[in-house]
Amino acid sequence: MPHYEPADSFETPRFTGVRTFMRLPHVTDLTGVDFAVIGTPFDTGASYRVGARFGPAAIRNASALQRPFNAAQKIRIFDHLSGVDYGDLPTVPGQIEESYKRIVDALTPIVRSGVTPILLGGDHSVTLAHLRAVSNVHGPLALVHFDSHSDTWDSYFGFKYNHGTPFKRASEEGILDPTHSIQIGMRGPLYDAEDLDVARALGFEVIDGYELPQYSPAQLAQKIKARVGDKPVFITFDIDFVDPAFAPATGTPEIGGPTSREALDYVRALAGLNFVGCDVVEVLPAYDHAEVTALLAATVAYELITLLALAKAGGKA
Amino acid sequence: MPHYEPADSFETPRFTGVRTFMRLPHVTDLTGVDFAVIGTPFDTGASYRVGARFGPAAIRNASALQRPFNAAQKIRIFDHLSGVDYGDLPTVPGQIEESYKRIVDALTPIVRSGVTPILLGGDHSVTLAHLRAVSNVHGPLALVHFDSHSDTWDSYFGFKYNHGTPFKRASEEGILDPTHSIQIGMRGPLYDAEDLDVARALGFEVIDGYELPQYSPAQLAQKIKARVGDKPVFITFDIDFVDPAFAPATGTPEIGGPTSREALDYVRALAGLNFVGCDVVEVLPAYDHAEVTALLAATVAYELITLLALAKAGGKA
Amino acid sequence: MPHYEPADSFETPRFTGVRTFMRLPHVTDLTGVDFAVIGTPFDTGASYRVGARFGPAAIRNASALQRPFNAAQKIRIFDHLSGVDYGDLPTVPGQIEESYKRIVDALTPIVRSGVTPILLGGDHSVTLAHLRAVSNVHGPLALVHFDSHSDTWDSYFGFKYNHGTPFKRASEEGILDPTHSIQIGMRGPLYDAEDLDVARALGFEVIDGYELPQYSPAQLAQKIKARVGDKPVFITFDIDFVDPAFAPATGTPEIGGPTSREALDYVRALAGLNFVGCDVVEVLPAYDHAEVTALLAATVAYELITLLALAKAGGKA
Amino acid sequence: MPHYEPADSFETPRFTGVRTFMRLPHVTDLTGVDFAVIGTPFDTGASYRVGARFGPAAIRNASALQRPFNAAQKIRIFDHLSGVDYGDLPTVPGQIEESYKRIVDALTPIVRSGVTPILLGGDHSVTLAHLRAVSNVHGPLALVHFDSHSDTWDSYFGFKYNHGTPFKRASEEGILDPTHSIQIGMRGPLYDAEDLDVARALGFEVIDGYELPQYSPAQLAQKIKARVGDKPVFITFDIDFVDPAFAPATGTPEIGGPTSREALDYVRALAGLNFVGCDVVEVLPAYDHAEVTALLAATVAYELITLLALAKAGGKA
Amino acid sequence: MPHYEPADSFETPRFTGVRTFMRLPHVTDLTGVDFAVIGTPFDTGASYRVGARFGPAAIRNASALQRPFNAAQKIRIFDHLSGVDYGDLPTVPGQIEESYKRIVDALTPIVRSGVTPILLGGDHSVTLAHLRAVSNVHGPLALVHFDSHSDTWDSYFGFKYNHGTPFKRASEEGILDPTHSIQIGMRGPLYDAEDLDVARALGFEVIDGYELPQYSPAQLAQKIKARVGDKPVFITFDIDFVDPAFAPATGTPEIGGPTSREALDYVRALAGLNFVGCDVVEVLPAYDHAEVTALLAATVAYELITLLALAKAGGKA
Amino acid sequence: MPHYEPADSFETPRFTGVRTFMRLPHVTDLTGVDFAVIGTPFDTGASYRVGARFGPAAIRNASALQRPFNAAQKIRIFDHLSGVDYGDLPTVPGQIEESYKRIVDALTPIVRSGVTPILLGGDHSVTLAHLRAVSNVHGPLALVHFDSHSDTWDSYFGFKYNHGTPFKRASEEGILDPTHSIQIGMRGPLYDAEDLDVARALGFEVIDGYELPQYSPAQLAQKIKARVGDKPVFITFDIDFVDPAFAPATGTPEIGGPTSREALDYVRALAGLNFVGCDVVEVLPAYDHAEVTALLAATVAYELITLLALAKAGGKA
Repeated sequence: MPHYEPADSFETPRFTGVRTFMRLPHVTDLTGVDFAVIGTPFDTGASYRVGARFGPAAIRNASALQRPFNAAQKIRIFDHLSGVDYGDLPTVPGQIEESYKRIVDALTPIVRSGVTPILLGGDHSVTLAHLRAVSNVHGPLALVHFDSHSDTWDSYFGFKYNHGTPFKRASEEGILDPTHSIQIGMRGPLYDAEDLDVARALGFEVIDGYELPQYSPAQLAQKIKARVGDKPVFITFDIDFVDPAFAPATGTPEIGGPTSREALDYVRALAGLNFVGCDVVEVLPAYDHAEVTALLAATVAYELITLLALAKAGGKA
Repeated sequence: MPHYEPADSFETPRFTGVRTFMRLPHVTDLTGVDFAVIGTPFDTGASYRVGARFGPAAIRNASALQRPFNAAQKIRIFDHLSGVDYGDLPTVPGQIEESYKRIVDALTPIVRSGVTPILLGGDHSVTLAHLRAVSNVHGPLALVHFDSHSDTWDSYFGFKYNHGTPFKRASEEGILDPTHSIQIGMRGPLYDAEDLDVARALGFEVIDGYELPQYSPAQLAQKIKARVGDKPVFITFDIDFVDPAFAPATGTPEIGGPTSREALDYVRALAGLNFVGCDVVEVLPAYDHAEVTALLAATVAYELITLLALAKAGGKA
Repeated sequence: MPHYEPADSFETPRFTGVRTFMRLPHVTDLTGVDFAVIGTPFDTGASYRVGARFGPAAIRNASALQRPFNAAQKIRIFDHLSGVDYGDLPTVPGQIEESYKRIVDALTPIVRSGVTPILLGGDHSVTLAHLRAVSNVHGPLALVHFDSHSDTWDSYFGFKYNHGTPFKRASEEGILDPTHSIQIGMRGPLYDAEDLDVARALGFEVIDGYELPQYSPAQLAQKIKARVGDKPVFITFDIDFVDPAFAPATGTPEIGGPTSREALDYVRALAGLNFVGCDVVEVLPAYDHAEVTALLAATVAYELITLLALAKAGGKA
Repeated sequence: MPHYEPADSFETPRFTGVRTFMRLPHVTDLTGVDFAVIGTPFDTGASYRVGARFGPAAIRNASALQRPFNAAQKIRIFDHLSGVDYGDLPTVPGQIEESYKRIVDALTPIVRSGVTPILLGGDHSVTLAHLRAVSNVHGPLALVHFDSHSDTWDSYFGFKYNHGTPFKRASEEGILDPTHSIQIGMRGPLYDAEDLDVARALGFEVIDGYELPQYSPAQLAQKIKARVGDKPVFITFDIDFVDPAFAPATGTPEIGGPTSREALDYVRALAGLNFVGCDVVEVLPAYDHAEVTALLAATVAYELITLLALAKAGGKA
Repeated sequence: MPHYEPADSFETPRFTGVRTFMRLPHVTDLTGVDFAVIGTPFDTGASYRVGARFGPAAIRNASALQRPFNAAQKIRIFDHLSGVDYGDLPTVPGQIEESYKRIVDALTPIVRSGVTPILLGGDHSVTLAHLRAVSNVHGPLALVHFDSHSDTWDSYFGFKYNHGTPFKRASEEGILDPTHSIQIGMRGPLYDAEDLDVARALGFEVIDGYELPQYSPAQLAQKIKARVGDKPVFITFDIDFVDPAFAPATGTPEIGGPTSREALDYVRALAGLNFVGCDVVEVLPAYDHAEVTALLAATVAYELITLLALAKAGGKA
Repeated sequence: MPHYEPADSFETPRFTGVRTFMRLPHVTDLTGVDFAVIGTPFDTGASYRVGARFGPAAIRNASALQRPFNAAQKIRIFDHLSGVDYGDLPTVPGQIEESYKRIVDALTPIVRSGVTPILLGGDHSVTLAHLRAVSNVHGPLALVHFDSHSDTWDSYFGFKYNHGTPFKRASEEGILDPTHSIQIGMRGPLYDAEDLDVARALGFEVIDGYELPQYSPAQLAQKIKARVGDKPVFITFDIDFVDPAFAPATGTPEIGGPTSREALDYVRALAGLNFVGCDVVEVLPAYDHAEVTALLAATVAYELITLLALAKAGGKA
């Protein structure tokens, strides 16, 4: 059984080689693989700035700085996990429904094979396809959703599929279970007062960005774990959850969010959460500088992978 | 009586159309208008970096992301207010006294018509002209001044008018009342020890940037409201009040300021304050990236407009 | 009858005011209007880099530097023409066919009113909608097409509408007449040998980018005028016609094109050509620096407007 | 008698040390000095983009790449000349007339001491002060003026001193002699037809940017030399003479100019011209990338210094 | 005895003149000098991003904004200190051991003369040379080390000298005393679990970046002062100690660090600490925007100089 | 026997997938391979700007725009060639001689296997290692060298190996034959007059950048082909051969070079030249914008691959 881990950076420098996530091997035969990092380069769902189709490439570039021992969590990730960079899922620029179809067709068998997908968007519309594929295997999912927006509109310009609607659609399709789902960080102006209540009306718990500072990471984690219960969990992390000073390169930035230190602490506090899939979305490299946004996204993905390792390590004990 | 509000972003996308502040109509007949967003594109008062003449255009561009329901304050702004983008005031690049004259001549009748001006600078020298115009109508003003600098020098290179002197001049001219005014956030190196005391000697209350972290937004608001009393209030917000990570595109950045979340919370805590005018100044787009500074400035202006709505809503109740 | 011309920059500086093209008034009642500058902010048709939805705003910003007397052509444009900035046409991000419908519905009556549209893209897919609207009024059009790509593919990923196919579609729809049309500047690698011949097989004349240096502007103009004959002409100018050093901010740049001086000379040589519509497309501001691409696009649009003025001046004489 | 030349870059790398022009010593005692590079950091005269006050610093930074042997002209510059970086002239931001006074007061004695000043702007308004100082010593000057604008307006907004008027003022003041002066490269839109003729009406010869491609560098040099005759010559080089692809970082770019290779060839062709002063102006570093504009400006200044060396070498022979 | 202080910015604007640190005179005769700012432009030790050779120039440029009265510490620096910009130490790009030799040879006599060096890197490998020179005079040093990395590896690719190893080497060489040294802020992924313990095994105290938020500045200062005791202290500040939002322009950024306000407060809390040398390293200007990183580095250096002034003022009292 | 060619961009968009050169498969078993694109990420040899270690990654990113049919040369490349992206050669940052050893050890067997290496630098010092490896197999090489610098110094700071010396070293080592070698495009200031003659004294033919405009591409090709005769040829292309407007992101830019159209025409004119290896060097992505430099480098590499295809096609005919 193969075991996959990052290239040894004491043999070849980290700026070397074809860029894969965290210098993992680029492998598409999933035998012996616990997690696969997979890009979904698609941005036709974007309502304002656009360019998240280049997100996966930018996150891969920045991820060269990640290393296999997580010092915050004190775990050697690859003692517990074998992981690869699978490459990107097929998409068709400009065609959201066709892209959904191709993504789901390609992703479902990966999930079915027992691999946990660590997905890199793309605008947030891709999460609907991710949820469809993962729920094809695991059934209705509990969602943990970090974002500055609820993305639970019914439609935009009369159209049902775009980056403002995925969680409304997912609720309707029964692929997520709002009663075990939670949204964290929503802030910024809305079109109308009822926008505030849509997510709650669908059954989601919401800790908005104005309440969030009252929670310590541990308290937030407790809330989240209580909420998701023993459901299979999907974690979706929109990079605009974080303040634009830390994540400028995103599609619809909202001033006044958490720092990246806070954001990482929220994720790390979920230690042991055994999710069945996750994504990090809305990185638009054309708006980045010094790769700060891409590096943040790569670090969030790295911390999510660490959660998997911690869960597996815990399971073993 | 006309009622003005932003274009409907469910009909035309937010990236569409001639850029006005918050997609408000560009109207110069002020019948039926409660507030007008007005640019003062001028930067001849700048002592270091320069380019705030492009500030109003950049803030307008970024403001397309604002939406009519303020979720932090839970108010539908345009239920209470009718607002427009009036365009820019006339200025002459390179000629500060002539520009002051033209600004005051153009702005005074707007204020006189009962419209509250939401002004977009421009370097901070423009605030002297704003104060002159507003006090022409309302008499001596109480100033609420967010900034990393006091801007109360007597002169620079022997010259009386520039962005380091407006509040000294305004005090001398009697257009503001220092005994009801307050400055918040001053930090960074000074030329000499007495620079610290100039503002206080003029009668201002000063909460400097080193004391500021000790105040919660509510405590700060209490201080401010106690200070301004029932005087007509002018709020001036220099974007360099915020740390350069959040507002890089400014003329004389000072390391070590508040985050933009803190800054917005300070402004929001002033709920109900019934100011007669305000400005947001010192945005230099040539130094911006991903519009983070312009978007912060647009958001501050948006929160100031919300204060007006809250004041008016309160008045009605 | 109103006459519209740019704001007087000796009264208000060029960096002043709500940004319209060339500081023209923003007017939507077309009485007394000869030409209207109109944006088509849409980029769902893009196959690689994306973001042309912000093209019209960027071109408007940069166009403030244009002035009413064309020194190259020695004509006072507004002695012969009355012009406005009409704003943008309605589009739906992510929905190309719906956007085509809305664009055509909005643009056709403008053309019908006798106004010549100067359209600002948008990725090149928008030109199909432009051609539909213009041909609704004028019948089959002669096309003058400056570009580094032929954009005559049959489909991309099995889909018929995107920025690689507009001129194939337009030929099929009979809204342009290839036998009076000409493509200029095609260069760069192709998918296959037959890509070279598709446009010619459709009936277009093609002067590719490798032949182009052999033509003087006057010779090129002669070719073009001979080709279009007395048909109603539409001019489409993809900014990637020009070398990426001069136009970096575009979606699919091709190394090795003409300089911007050459490009302007080609356009100027068309003096007197009486076109019925034109567009300038594929400006992606997120990739621009110092506005060089947007300023080039604004200048091309300005030279196209000048051609109209020259045609009208000639007609008068 | 001291002899000054650049630091030896085989001893200390070129990226080392306090930045002076071309790594020359920073010296203010002008004994033994043939030429002095001097900054005029001022931009209050700018009508559109602003920031040339940082021009001298940026040009100094970029000039580290210049080396003492001019390979195009085949001359060891410092065999013939001793040169220093004198630092900057005093200016007052926001105060053009006061700045003129300070510049002239500081520069006149330098010129009087026999040193040839190589001046680095600043916006083009500073050239009026340069001309005043140089003509204080040398009397009425012949001007060789490379630019895309004539800068011969009478006033802007009713004001006489700014970067659009220096050569009108200089003509009126009698400090230059238009009948021995020549302007080269004017292009781009104008406010009105008569703008074309103002310079000629003042007595200047003008080779505009549309005629310029017809001249070889040698032919242009012949024209220039014939024009200036035996008058003392001042050369002023506005970086916007060159196309924005080569010089993006400037205040009022005009699309469609010469390449930097052409520009350098025009300057080099003036070999032996014995000018009494020169400047390179309108570099705005905030708009630059990869220092391309600053490096071009540094190279133009370097070629101008070479002309001095060639003149002196010729005089010796 | 000369006394050196910054140029008077009321006589010449801060954007004027050849760029030295804080507008201090560039002097190499150290008579009468208390501290000298000195660059070490070298980056051959970098393992990932590179370009810190331009760090000193960028920090000098940004430092023009510093002024002589420290308002946070309420001290007029130059009442207590005379300081200069000494320029840069000699280095050889690409040759680390030769550069170490040249740096030590040049720096030792400066330290010996009684001047406190304020050194500007360069990548962190230069600190080994700094420590060698300072310990040549002062013997084994207590190190106060702010960084996100321990830089105590044994080797990288089998090589002993680079920016990952200086404190291992310094420990081995006996030029620092780990038992009186402290490292603060280490965070981010590591290659292996033992990387965590290397520094502690060498004898260093370590307060890592995950513990750090538990300390107030005063508590941290107490820890540091207790640790260093009465040993001669060297302070080394790697700019990547601070979060990448505040310091994007660095070689190996680590997401999730302190804000710049926190960082400055940590430094300021060391009031009175009488160090014998310090450096600020790892600024890579090619990755900066709006000079935020360079300005932060200049401010840290300024606060370090203030500590000197406070120590000296205290000594006097 | 496997045949390798780019991924089909009609199946997966060009912005998709792990970035390899031109979307070729990343393969290290060289059976059935005609050419391999190989990175040499190394920049310790750089004397001024640094960062070419990220060159290969940036060129791969940009190369996604290349397509398999060369329209300028009218050839389907992969009808004649099978090609792969081999990844990068091993290097040690900071250690030039060790890196040379590792590069040569890794590259020699590749060349020996009959594969033609298309190498992506790296600063120009890597070419010495490339030449060593290629001449290990093919014996003394004829060099065709496009550059703005001769890179034939004896040493820099007393050191023999860096990016200013590779062709001096290669001459001494007998791995290239200067009498069949030619350098094209040298321009810009030099340290001394003799720098001009060093290359010629070593036996190289030199067509400097001042003569170059006199040659048509065909004439230049004739010169080159006559010079190299029937020797095995190595082509080295330093991106600074091209003017900085077209290639800003390079280490030691020289103003006044050819356009990218000219550069591509020079390369294309070498149709049929049967070289045994080539490299494209000195791309520093941190200085790039909109990928213009990386895209130019990718296009030059693409044209070089086309020369191979043409040579092979010719051989078949």
